[in-house]
Amino acid sequence: MTYLGKKTLTEVVSGIASGTTKAEALVQECLARIDARDSEIAAWTYVAREQALAEARARDKETPRSPLHGLPVAVKDVIDTCDMPTEYGSPIYKGFRPHLDAACVAMVRAAGGIVLGKTVTTEFATRKPGPTRNPHNLEHTPGGSSSGSGAAVADGMVPLSFGTQTAGSVIRPASYCGVVGYKPTFNTISRVGLKLISDSLDTIGVLTATVADAALLVGTLHRKPLGAFDARPSAPRIGFCRTPVWDKAEDTTRALLEDAVARLAKAGAKVSDVELAPECADLFRTQANLSGVEGMRSLAHEWRTNRDLISDMLQTKLQAAVDDFSVDDYFTAQRFAEGCRLKTDALFNDFDVLVTPSAMGEAPKGIEATGDPMFNTLWTVLYTPAVTVPALSGPNGLPVGVQVVGPRFGDDQTLTYAEWVHQALT
Amino acid sequence: MTYLGKKTLTEVVSGIASGTTKAEALVQECLARIDARDSEIAAWTYVAREQALAEARARDKETPRSPLHGLPVAVKDVIDTCDMPTEYGSPIYKGFRPHLDAACVAMVRAAGGIVLGKTVTTEFATRKPGPTRNPHNLEHTPGGSSSGSGAAVADGMVPLSFGTQTAGSVIRPASYCGVVGYKPTFNTISRVGLKLISDSLDTIGVLTATVADAALLVGTLHRKPLGAFDARPSAPRIGFCRTPVWDKAEDTTRALLEDAVARLAKAGAKVSDVELAPECADLFRTQANLSGVEGMRSLAHEWRTNRDLISDMLQTKLQAAVDDFSVDDYFTAQRFAEGCRLKTDALFNDFDVLVTPSAMGEAPKGIEATGDPMFNTLWTVLYTPAVTVPALSGPNGLPVGVQVVGPRFGDDQTLTYAEWVHQALT
Repeated sequence: MTYLGKKTLTEVVSGIASGTTKAEALVQECLARIDARDSEIAAWTYVAREQALAEARARDKETPRSPLHGLPVAVKDVIDTCDMPTEYGSPIYKGFRPHLDAACVAMVRAAGGIVLGKTVTTEFATRKPGPTRNPHNLEHTPGGSSSGSGAAVADGMVPLSFGTQTAGSVIRPASYCGVVGYKPTFNTISRVGLKLISDSLDTIGVLTATVADAALLVGTLHRKPLGAFDARPSAPRIGFCRTPVWDKAEDTTRALLEDAVARLAKAGAKVSDVELAPECADLFRTQANLSGVEGMRSLAHEWRTNRDLISDMLQTKLQAAVDDFSVDDYFTAQRFAEGCRLKTDALFNDFDVLVTPSAMGEAPKGIEATGDPMFNTLWTVLYTPAVTVPALSGPNGLPVGVQVVGPRFGDDQTLTYAEWVHQALT
Repeated sequence: MTYLGKKTLTEVVSGIASGTTKAEALVQECLARIDARDSEIAAWTYVAREQALAEARARDKETPRSPLHGLPVAVKDVIDTCDMPTEYGSPIYKGFRPHLDAACVAMVRAAGGIVLGKTVTTEFATRKPGPTRNPHNLEHTPGGSSSGSGAAVADGMVPLSFGTQTAGSVIRPASYCGVVGYKPTFNTISRVGLKLISDSLDTIGVLTATVADAALLVGTLHRKPLGAFDARPSAPRIGFCRTPVWDKAEDTTRALLEDAVARLAKAGAKVSDVELAPECADLFRTQANLSGVEGMRSLAHEWRTNRDLISDMLQTKLQAAVDDFSVDDYFTAQRFAEGCRLKTDALFNDFDVLVTPSAMGEAPKGIEATGDPMFNTLWTVLYTPAVTVPALSGPNGLPVGVQVVGPRFGDDQTLTYAEWVHQALT
């Protein structure tokens, strides 16, 4: 995943800053890769070919506005763009074109970034997959729901992308595709213009080649550099958190993680085992409650006017939430989630970050399903920042990520130590 | 504010249920009132005359779907409707028609309710006023940002309406207009389809003639009856909370509130003074931080493409947030607000509800400004349910509300005791 022969995207940014590297050449290289590969991978729902080239030429004539200046960005197709189709992975929205750019898209453009196109999402970022395949093995799923973003970055079609996570939709596809996924602290990237399905869970994140690239994109939105990448920080205090579903990870994943943690200790980290508060095991049901009840409300218009175009899978999930959960259950779930967040905050008195699996294992075979988010669900409900780094390789030679989780609002240190972990393991 | 000669909306609901009352007649009565009065009041941006009548006739032929069946509802014009213009109080959106109904609108329609039209909002629900006047005295503001919803209900043009609150935009106009305003626990009415400006503060609420009507509307959305209105509950334990800005209330307001609280004690309530945790005084700055930073992000597209059509007032506020607050300040504000919420939860171990001013006083004279939200800001950031009841009258004979605040997620008891307070004072 090199661009214009540079070792890192940081070098590309330097080249653009000094005028020796052209955004137009970068966009052309991305388009050529898409031309060569996307008929097989199917990562994109729309490529803004001529528009992106025109914007690149315009950016090349300007003084760089930010480190993002001239860099192409892919946008998951549940995020609105005013000049490209936005279909939310649903036939209800075939050919739909929103009236405005989502906040994150507008901010990228204001910073000089170039929206290269839209990437495949599952239906409304839930479970029904799109056509995308895993670049590492076309017989395998790229994961979901940010399927296209993960695959496009993994295949070198675009260096930066937006995804979203309600259970495991950033971290899981990033792990399966062998890229970095970064889910920030809840609601720290504006969700305006996201097709909101679960208001209390939907989190915008990014999928990129490196941790520094993820920090570059999100830091630009925050107008503040994120993470420390120039000098290697001192080794972190790491809590190895197997989570209540550890036994459901594949045997090889458990062995890989145990070994990785041993190597982190050898590299200088102070590692000890840590367990979430026991009641956090109930957060799986909490996530189902919140996402189900809010999903039914969020899709109230589509349910009323186009129910037959909602997949059976999603209809079943939404109806089950109505049948299973009352508003009192919903209120209880909100309170319960908050209590678990506070207890988890307290863990970080003793640890800088936690290390935990990114997924049960490698990307499963087949593209009819996108894999299980169980190793991500807790961290989504807990609102903690999480970064997966592509540090391991599974029994079939497919990527396996290591997930680094930090304290809420501790995104800066989480990115810094995710990079430390990545370097220590590769 | 009677409809079809009935004493209460509950009687209208019974009439519709038994078939003796016709939704068409109710809609006609509302339209006649609008025809008679709205040239002066200017509460509506759009009245869906023929459509509402046609829907009423259709509803009259059906078995009632819910207690909301056949009832007209006004929708603040920051909330999307797919078949009516939605202009967000901004010239940028002149004539704009969204592609879908907001979740709360779709749910009202699914329940058989009739959207009568859209009501005036300030610019993006911030400060720049629309043309609406206070029905009690046309020289005075109706308050804002839910200006039209407050005025339309107060003038008997519609029994039920949606508003939104980011600082004081439901409770203040309700108090000024002499109606009930109910701001539920944060994010318990879905915000999908609301023009979101401050993701962590914007709260959808309702403005209605009575507490029972507010409970009817929101309870239908929750698919669960809210509040107890048939039998009078036992007297509540009331905390009289003057708030850190008590001294800024008008003298007459302070005297009215002190007297009201004495009367509540006489009526059987166990009343004692209560103070918020001292640091809650800083929540005013927290609200400015959150709403400013999030406002700038939320309007990133409009700022980039139509900045000249954003009012100077709003441009100044957004730019100030960028200048004053970093992302670290924003993170700190989020944490601080959460801490204050937890401390405020604890107050309700000793009290069923708090009683506190709804506004500094009566509606100020003039319609160039919508009044100060200072008595609402804290409760918005604290996420607590709040109900204002039109129990008092100020020195100019204009309405003065009493605000009843309950614990987060305690909406049911808050509505029950708000009704108790209203009855005890009137």
